[in-house]
Amino acid sequence: MRIEIVNTGTELLLGHTLNTHGAWLGAEVFKLGQRVARQTCVPDGVAIREVLMEALGRADAVLVTGGLGPTSDDLTREITAEVLGLELVQDATALASLEAFFAIRQRPMASDNLKQVLIPRGAQVLPNANGTAPGVYVAANLAGRPHAAIFLLPGPPRELYPMFLEQVVPRLRSLGGAAEPPELLELKFVGIGESDFHQALDARLAAIPGLEFGYCARIGEVDLRLIGGSAAIQQARALALECFAPQFVSDDGSSLEQTVVRLLGARGWTLATAESCTGGLIANRITNIAGASAVFTHGFVTYSNEAKSGLLGVTAQALASHGAVSEPVARQMAEAALVVSGADLAVAVTGIAGPSGGTADKPVGTAWIAVAQLGEETHAWRVFQPRNRQDFKLGVSQAALDALRRCL
Amino acid sequence: MRIEIVNTGTELLLGHTLNTHGAWLGAEVFKLGQRVARQTCVPDGVAIREVLMEALGRADAVLVTGGLGPTSDDLTREITAEVLGLELVQDATALASLEAFFAIRQRPMASDNLKQVLIPRGAQVLPNANGTAPGVYVAANLAGRPHAAIFLLPGPPRELYPMFLEQVVPRLRSLGGAAEPPELLELKFVGIGESDFHQALDARLAAIPGLEFGYCARIGEVDLRLIGGSAAIQQARALALECFAPQFVSDDGSSLEQTVVRLLGARGWTLATAESCTGGLIANRITNIAGASAVFTHGFVTYSNEAKSGLLGVTAQALASHGAVSEPVARQMAEAALVVSGADLAVAVTGIAGPSGGTADKPVGTAWIAVAQLGEETHAWRVFQPRNRQDFKLGVSQAALDALRRCL
Repeated sequence: MRIEIVNTGTELLLGHTLNTHGAWLGAEVFKLGQRVARQTCVPDGVAIREVLMEALGRADAVLVTGGLGPTSDDLTREITAEVLGLELVQDATALASLEAFFAIRQRPMASDNLKQVLIPRGAQVLPNANGTAPGVYVAANLAGRPHAAIFLLPGPPRELYPMFLEQVVPRLRSLGGAAEPPELLELKFVGIGESDFHQALDARLAAIPGLEFGYCARIGEVDLRLIGGSAAIQQARALALECFAPQFVSDDGSSLEQTVVRLLGARGWTLATAESCTGGLIANRITNIAGASAVFTHGFVTYSNEAKSGLLGVTAQALASHGAVSEPVARQMAEAALVVSGADLAVAVTGIAGPSGGTADKPVGTAWIAVAQLGEETHAWRVFQPRNRQDFKLGVSQAALDALRRCL
Repeated sequence: MRIEIVNTGTELLLGHTLNTHGAWLGAEVFKLGQRVARQTCVPDGVAIREVLMEALGRADAVLVTGGLGPTSDDLTREITAEVLGLELVQDATALASLEAFFAIRQRPMASDNLKQVLIPRGAQVLPNANGTAPGVYVAANLAGRPHAAIFLLPGPPRELYPMFLEQVVPRLRSLGGAAEPPELLELKFVGIGESDFHQALDARLAAIPGLEFGYCARIGEVDLRLIGGSAAIQQARALALECFAPQFVSDDGSSLEQTVVRLLGARGWTLATAESCTGGLIANRITNIAGASAVFTHGFVTYSNEAKSGLLGVTAQALASHGAVSEPVARQMAEAALVVSGADLAVAVTGIAGPSGGTADKPVGTAWIAVAQLGEETHAWRVFQPRNRQDFKLGVSQAALDALRRCL
């Protein structure tokens, strides 16, 4: 079955809003054993007509997002009816829902909202529990000539996502027959680059029959995507782990921070962080994970030298003779964080994010990471990530979380 | 001039990677006084052919990203030559650059890389200082029949962005003539919803001749986009500020955290943060801004009750009788952060991110924010943001940064 996505919205093409719908719908369609053949963004308004006509002639099903609101630039409903040559009629059930939506909220309904309950004659309403715009399903060939099935869906994610999962998925399933989705496995690795994978694995993976594979490189991370039959995927997984076991993080979509929180929990350990250059990013990533409160207690963001001395007792001598970005300071920070917090494990980072502050000896991008562990020797590493400020912070936080993961 | 974008990449349609290129290129094209008429995503491989043929017939210029790499699924170069009926020839300058790229890095060049220096006969090479794949510029109608100008650009952002700015922009400018870009002004507001704008402003903005406007609602933030002539934009700006002056953050694209750092710097003040539920996010947002080290010194992430008592002296009595998520605890955290750090201003947050931990009295989504200021009374607010964990953290951090902004 050929599925296409059409995302409407001027803001998408002006670059003010990232098109997250395309990616979300693509991943959901894949779970149904199907692929999105093409995704198109068009501005609001009449440009939708051309794109819709083309997609309706080419695809079996077209998912359209946006343009169902009450304002004058919301034209998806009208253009769809026009392209199909179907009259727009008021739907009584949708009207009752819309009136109830406003009544519950004790707000008057503007007359503009009435256009939201117009649907092409013969189409089905997809009720919207989370907003005013009902969706619309037009069955294939309803207009008396060959055309794709069409789903008109609202733009706001909190309306789109439940409507897609509850109302579009069952219809796509019955349109597409009982397609068995191929397996998809994504292996996450840290601390190596995409080119390491190319060299070590490309030829060997390409030799596995029925396997589709690809890489996605992010900062400090490479994801290996495997698609195919179960046996092919297991063979590929074993090959990848044979080459890169120490760098392997997860094959269930778990992020590095999720893995660290899980490993801490499994040991019953607690963690403290002492951050200079990452400025709270490591603590922030850890506390993004539900359950972090069981394993994470204290975070120190010691951005100034005074904070390093005052909160963590970093010595004036270490700061003066080695500088804030140095191995001795990173070690002192980690060891003090361990003692002050009473945690089982502590990680410390200190570095130069830039744009200013670099020297010939310690250029922008330099950082020291230290991990202190109760009753063990403290370890420290130098990393060098000459990137923009936010990518530098992310890269150093990846290296620090990976140091924790290896320690666990 | 009609400009279209074609983004190639299977990962974009599988939903593993967000298409950030489309938005970035859209914003850059707008700065040239042009708009992107359509943006299309296609999987790697032969599907590119169909999309490219259509776009070449419809547009004046087509920007294609991705598929210039050395591997077997990188076919953009080959398909472009085929569609245009042009032979692929090796470019001597590009070959010399490629050899130099590997020589500098002391790495051997794989024979696969050689295909990267093949270009359609008569096309121009766009040198790539940041990677192995040179870009390609095919002038309009080069193939001896009407077709759009084509730019083939590499996928990695660090290669794409400089190549676009340095080599594509001048060519698009000369293709498009001296188009005067309309003015674009984006006003950022916090602490109000999109519907407040609709009610107060929609009709009045619609009455301004020659003005195009739109909203983009994010968590705890609404951006108002104004496009048009200078007079129309100034009139619209005045109207918006008349209604929502206290909520106005910036009209130069500055984020809330940039505004807070700028205001702190202007006063010569320093800031300390004491975070429980936001877990370092506020410190992280502040330290994303270049120059933060001049105004931000100490951050406390007191995730456990022990950390709140141990680092910030929150009293056992306050924790026992009011609970960690309470006004007295937020006040004690902010006041202690001020004293311990010696800063001029301190913000504290404590709340329940969930998914567990909520009660009837204090449901998930509840948070208290306090701001302490040297020599002034401490202020505290309750906020309620029943969202998923990360959106809750973001919403509370928005409210806390906004409290700082108002204080400054």
